[in-house]
Amino acid sequence: MNENAAVSHFNPGKGAGSSVGVAILGYGTVGSQVLRLMVENADEFAHRAGGPLEVKGVAVSNKEKHRGSLADELGLLTDDARGLIEREDIDLVVEVIGGIDYPRELVLKALRAGKSVVTANKALVAAHSAELSEAADAAGVDLYFEAAVAAAIPVVGPLRRSLAGDRILSVSGIVNGTTNFILDAMDTDGVSYDEILAESIRLGYAEADPTADVEGYDAASKAAILASLAFHTRVTADDVFREGISKITADDISAAKAAGYTIKLLAICERLIDAEGKESVSARVHPTLVPHDHPLASVTKSFNAIFVEAEAAGRLMFYGNGAGGNPTASAVLGDIVGAARNKVFGGRAPGESTYANLPIADFGDVPTRYHIDMDVVDRTGVLAELTKIFAEHQISLRTVRQEEKGEHARLILVTHAAREADLARTVEALAATDAVLAVNSVLRLAGE
Amino acid sequence: MNENAAVSHFNPGKGAGSSVGVAILGYGTVGSQVLRLMVENADEFAHRAGGPLEVKGVAVSNKEKHRGSLADELGLLTDDARGLIEREDIDLVVEVIGGIDYPRELVLKALRAGKSVVTANKALVAAHSAELSEAADAAGVDLYFEAAVAAAIPVVGPLRRSLAGDRILSVSGIVNGTTNFILDAMDTDGVSYDEILAESIRLGYAEADPTADVEGYDAASKAAILASLAFHTRVTADDVFREGISKITADDISAAKAAGYTIKLLAICERLIDAEGKESVSARVHPTLVPHDHPLASVTKSFNAIFVEAEAAGRLMFYGNGAGGNPTASAVLGDIVGAARNKVFGGRAPGESTYANLPIADFGDVPTRYHIDMDVVDRTGVLAELTKIFAEHQISLRTVRQEEKGEHARLILVTHAAREADLARTVEALAATDAVLAVNSVLRLAGE
Repeated sequence: MNENAAVSHFNPGKGAGSSVGVAILGYGTVGSQVLRLMVENADEFAHRAGGPLEVKGVAVSNKEKHRGSLADELGLLTDDARGLIEREDIDLVVEVIGGIDYPRELVLKALRAGKSVVTANKALVAAHSAELSEAADAAGVDLYFEAAVAAAIPVVGPLRRSLAGDRILSVSGIVNGTTNFILDAMDTDGVSYDEILAESIRLGYAEADPTADVEGYDAASKAAILASLAFHTRVTADDVFREGISKITADDISAAKAAGYTIKLLAICERLIDAEGKESVSARVHPTLVPHDHPLASVTKSFNAIFVEAEAAGRLMFYGNGAGGNPTASAVLGDIVGAARNKVFGGRAPGESTYANLPIADFGDVPTRYHIDMDVVDRTGVLAELTKIFAEHQISLRTVRQEEKGEHARLILVTHAAREADLARTVEALAATDAVLAVNSVLRLAGE
Repeated sequence: MNENAAVSHFNPGKGAGSSVGVAILGYGTVGSQVLRLMVENADEFAHRAGGPLEVKGVAVSNKEKHRGSLADELGLLTDDARGLIEREDIDLVVEVIGGIDYPRELVLKALRAGKSVVTANKALVAAHSAELSEAADAAGVDLYFEAAVAAAIPVVGPLRRSLAGDRILSVSGIVNGTTNFILDAMDTDGVSYDEILAESIRLGYAEADPTADVEGYDAASKAAILASLAFHTRVTADDVFREGISKITADDISAAKAAGYTIKLLAICERLIDAEGKESVSARVHPTLVPHDHPLASVTKSFNAIFVEAEAAGRLMFYGNGAGGNPTASAVLGDIVGAARNKVFGGRAPGESTYANLPIADFGDVPTRYHIDMDVVDRTGVLAELTKIFAEHQISLRTVRQEEKGEHARLILVTHAAREADLARTVEALAATDAVLAVNSVLRLAGE
């Protein structure tokens, strides 16, 4: 239990006015903005943290690359991250390197040396939160990671603190700006996935290797973090069902649009309760049809938004910039002030909370709803034949739309909620019939 | 300085597993939900706070009125609030009475007795934050009031903590559900103000005496709290310029709609910087034309939303239920867990922060933009005559629209930003001409 750890290492604080020594690991887009703002707004930070924040060093892999930078001008550059962390005058370590293995080693080293850590590294937190939290608890220091989910949008703090008195039912988020930009452009301008992806890479909105974004790995890390916070249960990226947007076609978008939906890549974290009242947690990332009047449907361009449903609070949404140097720096700096304040005045931020320890639901058992787009032969009795397959699998249909498509017919069906595995088996059975010429797409719905 | 107070009274905490005694003052819509949820979810609260939360008493003015209630069944009712607060086994006092003078006395008494306080009382906090914060600091205890602004929407926490590393430029909010419900119904259904107000009172959406809501007093209290938090400056309700919605007509709404705007009652808190770089704070509440594509324009019914612009974070929005027993209870309970956690583990939440101590701008000096709707005589040269008056006051016009209205003409003008006092004088000068038959409405714009 982290509660005991917190107490056994209780830190009464250095006292008001004491300075807090800060090490920044990494000096890319985020690190350089963090340093700039700490220098420019030093007076404000001192007031807010209760004492001056002094950046003692900025660790980079190659000092030559940063000649002439602010960190260089201030004489802060070092290529010895390990040595910097160990310095006696460092109270607080800020990790903005990226990657997993190297930052993991450094963050663990810092925590074990009694330094609080602020990280923006979603992949690290999603993969190793247990190990990191245990190290923080053992040393009685803080581990902050607001920037790991949706950058400047406060979401870790609100889930940990503001909603600490409520029961969260679900958290659904647009947590990847690149894929939202791509899907929004497809929806608004009718361009194809390949076109807009190529343009996004050219403009720097997407990485040269866009896999982490478009295949949903980045969103899955964030889903794991959100589900852990919301349900007081340890959820790692491996527990998250994941499906990316690379198979979404312009046809899918226009079919969804015609039916009143927008396609978004959602990270969905749900508290499930089965017929016996047994609770479990589902965390998943997949392209999702969201009705036009849902607040998440109007989140355009590269904006992010987190939609929360809680028992007492009802529906909440947090919206803003989910990426970029400055927005990420804003979140990192908020965490720096919080961690520094605890170093000055004592006390600890709430740490990892896993008491509920709910089981992770098997994805096949999760209730989902399908939007199925098929080409079928155009003859009498086909609809009856196909809808019978749904009935046999205990799936009820919500809407059925049939239209002409050349010599064939196009059938677009929306189901009511059913077990994912039953829905998937139904689609298999449909595809196996002679009546179905092609299953054009199978997409899930949410938000109704 | 509250920092020193915090340290001189440093509380190392009761230790993990210790129980925290809670007194609830008031047992109306919010108080009864708070008790119910604390009882129903007691296990969860114990985990989150680090020890069990035990409600020791619920103070009401008339015990007979609450016979048969949960508080009565549990033997918690008392009509001696002062005595309850002073009990040794009370660590934490929850104030959900409403009003100002009586709760002020009780909250001060609690703080001075070393009890942390959670309150949902916006009027109290907006009027007396200095006195309350000083008492909390002197005793080294916490004063939490998340529920005082926009109920379940986390905004006090995000402004105090998540954005503690950023410079907030402005906070604009729809912070009163009743007026948003009325304006939205006028916009959507074209009903008159009087009709929808009467219906709102009949349905219980508005108070029998709706003054606090419709004249903007409630929103002004919240604006004071938001401005204080955002700008680290003490702002009270008296510092807030206030104009309600009672003069808004169906004509205003339809004219705004035609021009691409929605009318919202906004609480606007801005950091102003004059030509010499001198900063000041403006806090104001008035009906405001918001462009249809602004995120605040799509906040319908009785929902609330807070829109924040910060230097590094950019634009953020927080959206949800801004009133009601359960949403308010959610925010109160989040604060209870936070305050209880500090009682168990030690440490204090960030208190009032007023180091910036910026001057409050004179409303006449605040840059605003006007939407002016006038009836004018229909003769050659009138437009030239009237636009000359704008030029004489150094006001430039952004859009001009003239249409027929019976024998006269209707002139709708939108200005660029100018000093409020200059705009007001311009309208006076216009009204004094023979050419202007009636000034139908003057409304301010924001969000472009």
